Amino acid sequence: MIGEIIAIGDELTSGRIANTTSRFAAHHLFAAGHEIVAMHTIGDTPELIGEALKRAIRRADFVIVTGGLGSTTDDLTNEAVTRALNRQSILYPELLEKIRARLRENHNQDNGLEKLAWLPEGAEILTDKRMAGYMLVHDGVPIFFLPGVPSQMKHLLVEEVLPRLATWTGNNRKHVRLRVYRTFGLPELEINRLLSDIEKTKRVKIGYYPVDCEVHVSLTILGRDDDEARRLFEEMDSAITRILGDAIYGIDRETMAMVVGRLLQESDRTIGVAESCTGGLIASKITEIPGCSNWFTGGVVAYANSVKESLLQVDHDLLIRYGAVSDPVAEAMARGIGRCTGAPVTLSVTGIAGPTGGSEEKPVGTVYFGLGFDGNISTHLYRFSGNRKAIQEHAAMTGLDMVRRTLLDERKARGPQFPEPPVRELVDDDTTQCTGNREY
Amino acid sequence: MIGEIIAIGDELTSGRIANTTSRFAAHHLFAAGHEIVAMHTIGDTPELIGEALKRAIRRADFVIVTGGLGSTTDDLTNEAVTRALNRQSILYPELLEKIRARLRENHNQDNGLEKLAWLPEGAEILTDKRMAGYMLVHDGVPIFFLPGVPSQMKHLLVEEVLPRLATWTGNNRKHVRLRVYRTFGLPELEINRLLSDIEKTKRVKIGYYPVDCEVHVSLTILGRDDDEARRLFEEMDSAITRILGDAIYGIDRETMAMVVGRLLQESDRTIGVAESCTGGLIASKITEIPGCSNWFTGGVVAYANSVKESLLQVDHDLLIRYGAVSDPVAEAMARGIGRCTGAPVTLSVTGIAGPTGGSEEKPVGTVYFGLGFDGNISTHLYRFSGNRKAIQEHAAMTGLDMVRRTLLDERKARGPQFPEPPVRELVDDDTTQCTGNREY
Repeated sequence: MIGEIIAIGDELTSGRIANTTSRFAAHHLFAAGHEIVAMHTIGDTPELIGEALKRAIRRADFVIVTGGLGSTTDDLTNEAVTRALNRQSILYPELLEKIRARLRENHNQDNGLEKLAWLPEGAEILTDKRMAGYMLVHDGVPIFFLPGVPSQMKHLLVEEVLPRLATWTGNNRKHVRLRVYRTFGLPELEINRLLSDIEKTKRVKIGYYPVDCEVHVSLTILGRDDDEARRLFEEMDSAITRILGDAIYGIDRETMAMVVGRLLQESDRTIGVAESCTGGLIASKITEIPGCSNWFTGGVVAYANSVKESLLQVDHDLLIRYGAVSDPVAEAMARGIGRCTGAPVTLSVTGIAGPTGGSEEKPVGTVYFGLGFDGNISTHLYRFSGNRKAIQEHAAMTGLDMVRRTLLDERKARGPQFPEPPVRELVDDDTTQCTGNREY
Repeated sequence: MIGEIIAIGDELTSGRIANTTSRFAAHHLFAAGHEIVAMHTIGDTPELIGEALKRAIRRADFVIVTGGLGSTTDDLTNEAVTRALNRQSILYPELLEKIRARLRENHNQDNGLEKLAWLPEGAEILTDKRMAGYMLVHDGVPIFFLPGVPSQMKHLLVEEVLPRLATWTGNNRKHVRLRVYRTFGLPELEINRLLSDIEKTKRVKIGYYPVDCEVHVSLTILGRDDDEARRLFEEMDSAITRILGDAIYGIDRETMAMVVGRLLQESDRTIGVAESCTGGLIASKITEIPGCSNWFTGGVVAYANSVKESLLQVDHDLLIRYGAVSDPVAEAMARGIGRCTGAPVTLSVTGIAGPTGGSEEKPVGTVYFGLGFDGNISTHLYRFSGNRKAIQEHAAMTGLDMVRRTLLDERKARGPQFPEPPVRELVDDDTTQCTGNREY
């Protein structure tokens, strides 16, 4: 089905807040075989909201509207809908009862929340849970109104909207296959050149997306039937995998740290990291992964030289003679973190992230890596460009990629293995909306 | 002026890539006094691009179009423009010369890049630099076509588009003042209630935006003249600052780590951090800040218990008797990191980020903090909810906020001080686009 997405809120049109929900919706709708032809972001202006909604109803098979359903004064979606679609605002007694019960429970006197019990006539409430969200069918087009709070919107999209769309009559969805290849180390134009033949294949679409210092390549198959889609997908997938080789570090939603973790577990090794200029970014990327305690022992953020000495036992003379950003210090850091974590694989990073601290000999962007593998330590010098954040990100990814390639080489030396490709997850609950209470 | 933004690319409508450029543009255009009424994201389909462009020209005083200007086969913006606006595609010889020179320089045979020298008739090239981007005036409406690469788009918007718009005739921009108050620790509805009176003031607009575990409050003044705007802004600013008090940790683009760093420097102290469940996230937030070496000595990511013992000298018996996630271990970690970094302020975090590892007594989300201040250590227990990432983010922010409040209390005890509010930066070069070369 062809869909449009409308996100509502002055916080979006003024650039105050990044619109993450539209992207999430587009991603999952696309993966479910729907095509999103346009996404709109409209401020809190009922007239413009109504106009966008009416236009979308004319063009699309379904519409998703997010935001503006809350109780604060700038939440105007329902007002816009009732006006644009000529519907009355109706009190939903079951909603009112729930809201009142909740207010009583929290000893809350705020009657403003009762506004949430009024919905446009014909609205079908999407969930029993404590969140706004309803469906309205207008001129045969289902319109889903979802809250702007990312966690709620994502939950409702996956649990309520996708199933309803899948069973919607008149559903003539295409036979789509999608895979994303995440690459590191090859420039975008080079990848484009390598895949130029594949690009010419009918019903095959290749996209190139630089993301930070990676390039993601998407393969989309739009088959005329399921058999053709499957056949084409398998053919193109193996071609791309062959052509790009180890430059592909992961597929779909796999991160570099996830892949490093998988390889470490396969080789039954753990890793410890010693970071200076990346300042904990590598450890943080690692510890994002659930279960990383199986392969990550710990790390040191040795920012001050005194900490390099005290925690990593880097020789004082070495720091004086060569400077903290040097080959010997990177090596000593990699050795030191191995000593105190007991990990057979170690990674150290020391460099100049800027904006100050550079010299002619060692400009901003100069980064030394130490890589320890079963006691052997190699060092590597890179020069990155960009601002502080870009240098830190590039250095962190480069370090993790070194570990990945070392483990891959070792696996190849051990002989062929064909691990299962990871299962593609539909729901990425990557929200950081959170609640918490201090206990004492 | 009233503007619309159109972002182009299948990578956006399929949800593959987050659209960060539209938000950046909206933010800066808004700050410059323009009003963005709608933002659209359109796939790589020339018909839909043309339709959106023509509609925007009818409704808006200016239009920004981003993406689709590159040399790969899915870059179709120029084709869409020439068709929709009935303009010929013209070869720009000066562009061609530059492209050829660059190809020669890089020993590159790829003639595909020469496509970039063809632009719609009437296009005015925006910059001499090596990036695409041009302006076209259609029916009196300036349309700016910018590359989709975030760093280039941001550069051109700030350096070329904003100055051109500022001097555009017929410019009747409003007198706008904008400030964002970043709060931590108060629920959104409570803030809404506290500011309900201010909200009723004419020409004053208050917005509420939950971002991760923070709530950002925006104050927008739309004055009839500059004097009124300034007067109203000062009045409202001091009211909000008084009402929300210490719950405001920063304004505009200040991060929690920046504020902690400023307070540490004011008090002439440094900090060291010992992280278990946050896994380097706190250190990483700190080391994002340029110049943090003045107030950050270093950290330990003590993920495995053995590392808590070896690096932080946490007593083995303590770990056995109370478990790693406990009050005594948080305290010992805060003491240990003080010992090895020499920092007078220390922060330790140990908890269960999930999704596994919880128990009835200590469910997922249980986090103990240790806070050391000049040798005195206090411990604090929180329970957070959400997924792994949310718990890590909330714990990191809570830990930093503890340090902030402790330093604020101490400053108050020292007597009143009125530091200058930080200067608002127009250009946030927060891109992580990066390039880099291996040196050996």
